[in-house]
Order: sequence, then C-alpha cells, then structure tokens
Amino acid sequence: MKPTVAIVGLGQIGGSLAAALTGRKLARVIGITRRAKTARRALKMRLLEAAGTELSWVGRADVVVLATPVRTLLGQIPRVAPQVRPGALLTDVGSTKKDIVEAFRRVRTPATVVAGHPMAGNERAGLDGVDPGLFVGRPWILIPGSPRDRRAAGLLERLVRGVGAQPRWMKDPLEHDLIVARVSHIPYLLAYALLGASGEAIRSCGNSFRDATRVAASEVEMVLDFLLTNKAPIRRAGRELISELTGLLDRVESGDDRRLRKALAWARQRRLRI
Amino acid sequence: MKPTVAIVGLGQIGGSLAAALTGRKLARVIGITRRAKTARRALKMRLLEAAGTELSWVGRADVVVLATPVRTLLGQIPRVAPQVRPGALLTDVGSTKKDIVEAFRRVRTPATVVAGHPMAGNERAGLDGVDPGLFVGRPWILIPGSPRDRRAAGLLERLVRGVGAQPRWMKDPLEHDLIVARVSHIPYLLAYALLGASGEAIRSCGNSFRDATRVAASEVEMVLDFLLTNKAPIRRAGRELISELTGLLDRVESGDDRRLRKALAWARQRRLRI
Repeated sequence: MKPTVAIVGLGQIGGSLAAALTGRKLARVIGITRRAKTARRALKMRLLEAAGTELSWVGRADVVVLATPVRTLLGQIPRVAPQVRPGALLTDVGSTKKDIVEAFRRVRTPATVVAGHPMAGNERAGLDGVDPGLFVGRPWILIPGSPRDRRAAGLLERLVRGVGAQPRWMKDPLEHDLIVARVSHIPYLLAYALLGASGEAIRSCGNSFRDATRVAASEVEMVLDFLLTNKAPIRRAGRELISELTGLLDRVESGDDRRLRKALAWARQRRLRI
Repeated sequence: MKPTVAIVGLGQIGGSLAAALTGRKLARVIGITRRAKTARRALKMRLLEAAGTELSWVGRADVVVLATPVRTLLGQIPRVAPQVRPGALLTDVGSTKKDIVEAFRRVRTPATVVAGHPMAGNERAGLDGVDPGLFVGRPWILIPGSPRDRRAAGLLERLVRGVGAQPRWMKDPLEHDLIVARVSHIPYLLAYALLGASGEAIRSCGNSFRDATRVAASEVEMVLDFLLTNKAPIRRAGRELISELTGLLDRVESGDDRRLRKALAWARQRRLRI
C-alpha cells in the first residue's frame, strides 16, 4: 500500500515534492494550502489526489510535510503536531533549522519528528517553480527530533531517495544553519551587494555578473524568511567571507603574482571537484 | 572584396573571433600563434584560411587584432605596431584597457589604432572554448587611440556588429577598467573568496553556490592577467562591494524586516531588468 503524504504549503518546494511523489507513484499526496485558489491550481496541474484548506487533514496522513515559509511554519508547528496520527511521521522542508528544531522539541506529538531541508530550488516563485526533478542529486538534510526518531524514520528516508535526493543525517541544527549560511545565504547577500555596488556598470555586464547575481531574482519574501531566521550563522559566515575577500584584494594590490596564483589555483581545483 | 583580418593569439577569444568572421563570411582570417601546434589545430578546425607563427604576417592585413593575454600583449605592441600596413586598423581584445591604451599611445604606427574589449567569454580554456556565437548580444567596448582614429574605425565597427556584438565607444580607459572591475573582476574574486571560506560546507552546496562560483573554474593565467593589470579599479570596486555587503549584514543582524525587504526588492528589480 502506498503511504499517504500530506503537504502543508504548495509553493515551489511543496509543489515540486508533490509532483515528484505523484509522478514516481511513491505516495498518495494530499495538499493543504491557505488559499483555495492555490489548491485548485495544484489539482489542475495533477500534482496530487486531493487539495484543500483544512489543516485537520494532516490527521489522515502517514507522513506530514510542512512546506510553508519558515516564519509561517514556526507558527504552524504547535497547531499541527498534536493532530498528526500516532506513529505517523512529521517533517518539514524549511531552509533554516535551529528555530524549527526547537519548536518541534517544545511540542507534544504522537508522531516521529524529523526536521528536513532539501537543498534545492530555482528562482521561480510558487507553483510556477514546480519541477518534479528539482531534488535529483541534491542533498536532503535530516535532523531527528530525538535519537529514537532517527531510527523510526525509514519511510521518510525512502521517500527522500525516491524523489532522487541524497539523505544526509545531522545531529546539530546549528551545524546545518552554518552550512547553509556559507553555501547559500552568503551567495544571496553577495548577489544583492553586487547589484547595489555596480552602478551604471551594470549595462556592460557579462556572464560572470549574471551568474553571480542570478539568485537575486528570487522571491523577496522567501529570502527574508531564511535570512531573518539565521542571523548568527550569517554574521559568522559573512565575516569569514569578508576576511577571505580582503586577503585576495591585498594579494592583487601587492601584485604578488606567485601567492595570488597559488590561491586561485587552489580555489579552481576546489570548484572543479564540486 | 572581403577584408583580411590577422588575429595574433588563438585562445578562446581570438579563436572565437576567427570562427565568427570565417563562419559569417565577413573576412579572410589569418592567425598568428606562438606555437605551431595551435596554428595547425586552428586550421584543422577550419577557423581560418592561414595560420602560422610569423608575427610579420600582420603586414598583410587590413585589420590586426591582438588577442594574446594582456601582459603578453603589452610586450607585443611595440613590435607589431610598426609592421602594420599604412591605413590598416590595429586593435586588441584585452580585458583591461589603461595599460594597453598607454602602450598604443607610446608607439609610432602608420595604422589607425582602436583598443577594444568584447565583454564575452566562457570558462573553457584556449581553442576548447571556441564558440562562433560568443559575441552575440554582448557589448564590445571600443576606445580610440586618438579622436582621428575613431572616425577612421568604420571597418572595425562593421566587423564588431557583423559577429553580433554591440560596439560601445568610450573615451577613458580608466572608466572602462572600473566598469570591468565592478561587473567582472569583483565577481571573480567573490567566487574565489566563497570557495576559500566554505570549508566542509561545500559538500552541501546547491545552485546558488554553483552559480556564484562558476567563473572560478576559469584558466588561472587569464585571470591573473586581468587582475594584475587592473589594481586600482579593483581596489576601489572591492571597497564598494564590502561596504554594500556590510550594510546588508547589518540589516540582517538588526532584524530590520522593512529596510531589508526594501534593499532586496530594489536589487531584485535591478536584476530582472538585466
């Protein structure tokens, strides 16, 4: 029997997860959205079997996935957690984890709890960004609510693998948040900073600038959401980045050919191995 | 009669220019390279009519394009300039312009002199990076050796348009160099800085990091070449970038939702208009 997966929030990630689970026949998917219009559109797109606005539907599912923006999600956890079926699995796809894991650990729930973060996305907003292949080859971080929860999370791990992602277990949500600050939130901030500092030069920009600023086209509300729930790790990663950049600028200024070549060649090798 | 264009240096830019001029039947192209092997390979790829290692061949051309790396090019200008045919056009495709324009202005030549910079490129090295469509839709900066040279440069402008680029005249090479520092050299340095500061987190990177670091895969020698011939503009653009980034980090840290949203929305609009 296929498991029933309830997805709360049908944005780019929730919608793509629905599309991947339905398309690969891994689960019966039901969707819960704030707006009836979004539910109707998701049904029309054949992303899922049922969709509506009733949060209590989470009680029907074997797996409940909270896929709303992080700050919305934090408010939903206390309301959803008690309604989940005993033995079911409760997870989320929020892109910062410390606040969410704390919220999960504060509530009483009969469910197994595993916080999650698929490290995937594109710059299209909402259901316009749905892509059933979005998770293929991407890491999907999993953080158990308790050690017991990790053992009970086999079904979630199978679904994560089923949509093509690579489950990667972590214990510490702060470790996760520093990672995403370094490889995602700082690149976002750099994109905005480049756009802010480019002045009229932007009219002459080429591929290096386009690539480096691509993420700045993303939905502002989504970005605010992860930036403002990840302050301390972003501060730390920001300082590290400025320190690296200052070191490189110093090497350029001093004209130290040999030391600059060494730094560039090292970074190039690192990039080629990604 | 089709003009004869001599290209000195068959790397990614010189090779792509040869491919575009030949493919679109805009010119008879002859190539001059340091290594006979490169000349033979370019001939095999049918990028041009003739190729060899004799710098004196520049005397046969209506248009001479210096397409070697900037620091090599600076050494070639005094040797090439006197050999160019009277009335011919001498130009280059180097990616920084102050040192090159100064070198052009120091030499005696019977040619019309226009320094140039096609703002195009990819991360593949040498002839592996040849792409006859490389210049399509891209700006091609042109800086006259003297006001008279600008008037005489009609043939060059036609060839630039012919390969699909948009000629854009500038007077001041320093203006050019600050533009490329802002939209190209700083994105390169940010890519290296991101790779340097990412630590183990790199194993979890997604598209934002991949996009922001793509240029770091470029040939190190080419990058060294433009960084080390553009020190002052890079220093200035680097300071501007760090100041922008610090402002954004402060807004994140203060949790000022409204002011951060405003900055992000402004940058997003700017990105969408590129």
